[in-house]
Amino acid sequence: MALKHKGLECETIPWRFTDTAAIAPHGSKTVPVLIDNGRAIYDSWTIAEYLDQAYPSRPALFDGPASHALGYFFNQWVPTAIHTPLFKVILLDLYARLAEKDKAYFRESREKRFGMTLEQYGADPKSALPAFRHALAPLRQALVQYPFLGGHGPGYADYILFGAFQWARTMCPIRLLEPDDPVYAWREKLLDLFGGFAREAVGFPVWA
Amino acid sequence: MALKHKGLECETIPWRFTDTAAIAPHGSKTVPVLIDNGRAIYDSWTIAEYLDQAYPSRPALFDGPASHALGYFFNQWVPTAIHTPLFKVILLDLYARLAEKDKAYFRESREKRFGMTLEQYGADPKSALPAFRHALAPLRQALVQYPFLGGHGPGYADYILFGAFQWARTMCPIRLLEPDDPVYAWREKLLDLFGGFAREAVGFPVWA
Repeated sequence: MALKHKGLECETIPWRFTDTAAIAPHGSKTVPVLIDNGRAIYDSWTIAEYLDQAYPSRPALFDGPASHALGYFFNQWVPTAIHTPLFKVILLDLYARLAEKDKAYFRESREKRFGMTLEQYGADPKSALPAFRHALAPLRQALVQYPFLGGHGPGYADYILFGAFQWARTMCPIRLLEPDDPVYAWREKLLDLFGGFAREAVGFPVWA
Repeated sequence: MALKHKGLECETIPWRFTDTAAIAPHGSKTVPVLIDNGRAIYDSWTIAEYLDQAYPSRPALFDGPASHALGYFFNQWVPTAIHTPLFKVILLDLYARLAEKDKAYFRESREKRFGMTLEQYGADPKSALPAFRHALAPLRQALVQYPFLGGHGPGYADYILFGAFQWARTMCPIRLLEPDDPVYAWREKLLDLFGGFAREAVGFPVWA
């Protein structure tokens, strides 16, 4: 989404959790990794800041110093406050769709993180849904007042949050948001950006 | 802090919770209320936005559309995520320092909000302290990377957060932050702003 926002074309390479050999030469153990003019940049936040620095004449992902500092806070907040309850909803669907060769790594690393088995953590996705929706409360209030977290148009903070929904969309048939939720309307706008780019990702029928 | 940031002089009027008659003519039941050129503006957020609109040639509280939208999210997040655990730490000290005429209103309204007595909610301030410090985690990470939430200098988001610390400072002798906490260093910078304006508020010796 950040590359589309900048209007930059890129080639994407399909990748799985255990394909560490493919990115090791670039100094990272995790995705995303961006190769630009022979230089490797990794970590989403670092890539976003790099894009605004390297391509200043293209649409900005950050619109000023506060959007960097407050955006960095937001980038820390989303994984804890949003991904954690979302994970309880989507975990077992996600696990079921992993490539066989990734399952052992995923199970071991996530069970260590959660301190329990995947089956325990993801035991009751429907009951976990209200906690996820409640976690969105301060965002919901902002998205009633403003079209995007970036203000009039989308900015990098929108893409930080949107990533979680896109992840769920491709992995889990559970309906995360009701259509009367302001976050639903915001997500529709994100799905419409760049000629419906994010909508092209294969999603479940409930999202259609 | 927002008025100081704008370099605007103002007269402040001491006020208590039950002094509703003093602000009723201005259309508000709560403080702050700003009277500017005969016009009353209330609610901190609305006042901050008004100040940037009415005084655009003075230092900006918001530095772009994203700082409004993401700042509005932050303005919703702080009361729930930060004030709620902080209240468990400072509640009984705060209550003890209220004017006698305010105590009945405060007790009734807050007990309704908490669903329990003040003495139950604030029963164990020392045990509540770790939860408050933990709630600061995503802010702590941002304040390691950036001098202020406003970026290079303070912005309105800094003042949203700082209000909670100033509230505690004047009401409660418990040490909220350890000196090696990045949030402590940030708070020091806020206390130093505008010639040490916020430091002039009477605080407890532990803050000296």
